[in-house]
Amino acid sequence: MGKNRIEAFSDGVFAIAITLLVLNINNPDLIKASITSTLIRLYPNILAYILSFMTIGVYWVAHHTMIHFVRTIDRTALWINNLTLLFIAFMPFPTLLISWHYNDPIATTIYCLTLSMTNLTGSWFWWYVSKNSRHIEEGLSGKFIHRILVVHLCPIAIYVLAICFSFYSIYISYFLIALVPAFFILSNPLINKILLIDKTDRPWK
Amino acid sequence: MGKNRIEAFSDGVFAIAITLLVLNINNPDLIKASITSTLIRLYPNILAYILSFMTIGVYWVAHHTMIHFVRTIDRTALWINNLTLLFIAFMPFPTLLISWHYNDPIATTIYCLTLSMTNLTGSWFWWYVSKNSRHIEEGLSGKFIHRILVVHLCPIAIYVLAICFSFYSIYISYFLIALVPAFFILSNPLINKILLIDKTDRPWK
Amino acid sequence: MGKNRIEAFSDGVFAIAITLLVLNINNPDLIKASITSTLIRLYPNILAYILSFMTIGVYWVAHHTMIHFVRTIDRTALWINNLTLLFIAFMPFPTLLISWHYNDPIATTIYCLTLSMTNLTGSWFWWYVSKNSRHIEEGLSGKFIHRILVVHLCPIAIYVLAICFSFYSIYISYFLIALVPAFFILSNPLINKILLIDKTDRPWK
Amino acid sequence: MGKNRIEAFSDGVFAIAITLLVLNINNPDLIKASITSTLIRLYPNILAYILSFMTIGVYWVAHHTMIHFVRTIDRTALWINNLTLLFIAFMPFPTLLISWHYNDPIATTIYCLTLSMTNLTGSWFWWYVSKNSRHIEEGLSGKFIHRILVVHLCPIAIYVLAICFSFYSIYISYFLIALVPAFFILSNPLINKILLIDKTDRPWK
Repeated sequence: MGKNRIEAFSDGVFAIAITLLVLNINNPDLIKASITSTLIRLYPNILAYILSFMTIGVYWVAHHTMIHFVRTIDRTALWINNLTLLFIAFMPFPTLLISWHYNDPIATTIYCLTLSMTNLTGSWFWWYVSKNSRHIEEGLSGKFIHRILVVHLCPIAIYVLAICFSFYSIYISYFLIALVPAFFILSNPLINKILLIDKTDRPWK
Repeated sequence: MGKNRIEAFSDGVFAIAITLLVLNINNPDLIKASITSTLIRLYPNILAYILSFMTIGVYWVAHHTMIHFVRTIDRTALWINNLTLLFIAFMPFPTLLISWHYNDPIATTIYCLTLSMTNLTGSWFWWYVSKNSRHIEEGLSGKFIHRILVVHLCPIAIYVLAICFSFYSIYISYFLIALVPAFFILSNPLINKILLIDKTDRPWK
Repeated sequence: MGKNRIEAFSDGVFAIAITLLVLNINNPDLIKASITSTLIRLYPNILAYILSFMTIGVYWVAHHTMIHFVRTIDRTALWINNLTLLFIAFMPFPTLLISWHYNDPIATTIYCLTLSMTNLTGSWFWWYVSKNSRHIEEGLSGKFIHRILVVHLCPIAIYVLAICFSFYSIYISYFLIALVPAFFILSNPLINKILLIDKTDRPWK
Repeated sequence: MGKNRIEAFSDGVFAIAITLLVLNINNPDLIKASITSTLIRLYPNILAYILSFMTIGVYWVAHHTMIHFVRTIDRTALWINNLTLLFIAFMPFPTLLISWHYNDPIATTIYCLTLSMTNLTGSWFWWYVSKNSRHIEEGLSGKFIHRILVVHLCPIAIYVLAICFSFYSIYISYFLIALVPAFFILSNPLINKILLIDKTDRPWK
């Protein structure tokens, strides 16, 4: 299947999932109450909106970067990608859960599990396309391929930690969850080192 | 009408329909209740989300594959395609029905009827474009054209069977409904044999 | 502004408006009731969904055909087009009105007014781009330009008639409203004659 | 990252945000009441829909114009753009606030703050890409670059004024808010003068 059409379809799902998030805040019943009580009731929804928007944004950038190195996509790769989209499109639900139950470890657990599954399928996609030289761009070094895989898998460890902490301190849990998009968005020594690795092992310009 | 614009428009409708499915789970009233009771009430909605997401995904892949062999689209083909999109865009409703009434044969019947209509219009589209050599890619063998048609029509038999079983055992019914996307997604001898048939009757690489 | 980006943006708005229509049927409160009462309460919503889906589909095809003959788009044309998109994106509201108040002439009036405004802005767009030879494809005959304008304006007469009839017989009103998409979708002598007029006055192939 | 994919993703978010606005009017509970009371209750929602649709439309045109002069986009520019999309996608919420609380200065304040943040991030994006000659089109004059920046920042002053007036006269406040899209849409001497400045300081054709 053509790579372009899969990119376009995936972009569509990412864009819609990210823009649907605002519906978690637009609660007609609440909004009819006074503005002050509306804002007090809905500020967790607004914070969850920002967190999920930025997190899905990070996944979109990662998806785009990964697809960039792919040459051809067969049936298996296509369906692993669709599995990733299933979890991305699912995100508004755990986002609504942590909006209404921000103190509940179960809500945080479901949020972290959804993101972990997204990372897992994304890693699976990269592992699958990179083990077959027909699917992947020529000249990629093993070190680069391995690094992309590690970058996709590491957040799972953070999310598991966040799940554990959610039963002890919910604020540490949310701090860890927010750490993932923050790491990929804000400039820091570690992400700069990762980006310096050229796919053929020469430092990027 | 340009094939590209129809492809892009169709992709848009598929992507939006598939991403809107999560709204069937995001029920504000339920979610305000305790997490545990929320998840107990909403687990059918989540299962229905997964089923419909994967099923619409299969229809998108099939649509893309079919369009791939089409050269030009006239007014009639355009409107048969729009009819297919009407049923695809309708899918969130039967999905919500089986979420709230998963034991009711009428819900399952409406779900199966919607998917059958999608298969029917898809088959009609393929039959229409393939009978006119101007609309279809050159060199396609009659065997290949016939096989694509059969692949589009067969699921209707499964859905009719599922409707019949829904009045006897709702679980067999859902098993049959889930069989359709599973058949097209998971690798199995039958789908591999179908994919092996080259459009000009030579085995595909 | 680039014609391609305006086409893509417009296609996006059409695709989303058309796919959002299903949310008018997905009423969680109703759907929790028994299936039979759900279907009895929601059948007008389903009929309105089909009517609006096909009608917006016709406007999309017309929009695409019109844009096809346009070469360049300036600020004025861009904003007339955005005005058309404002009315298209508004359509889910009058659709919901006629779903819940299908007997009320005011609902039908608002539905017809919205569609009339869409036709009006569409005609305005075509009149604006065609009076300046820089914006329009070369070689278009005055007869062709005039015919496209007439085709855009005529439905307004039907909608005005439908508004009048809605105070006398609501069924004649809906028949007239449905006549518009039916005329453009189903093959008939009049639409075939219109399509036969070549833009340079030679019969189309 | 490829400029095209960012343009397409941004266009998607703009198109979805603008088309989701109608959901602020589609309130099922209200609509079941009589048509007349429905329209009386919902006319602020309809006016807010028109205001936000046109305003987001202006931001889309501005975004498109700005991206037109950009050659390459690095990680920083990408994330400033995503920040702009976060505020655009947020717009349905302040729109719903001013629909239900059009007399409340806090609602107007939140509406104006959201749009100010959009302008701020848009200005930041332009400032960032234009200070690095690698990212921007060749030959752009300093005067042109400065003018684009000023055009992005000025509305903030109008919004701040509107916030101040909202505590004194809510109608003057809305007049000012509506002034921003009106200025960019309707032809007037000032916008014509701005558009006459060629990027290389020659009057545009």
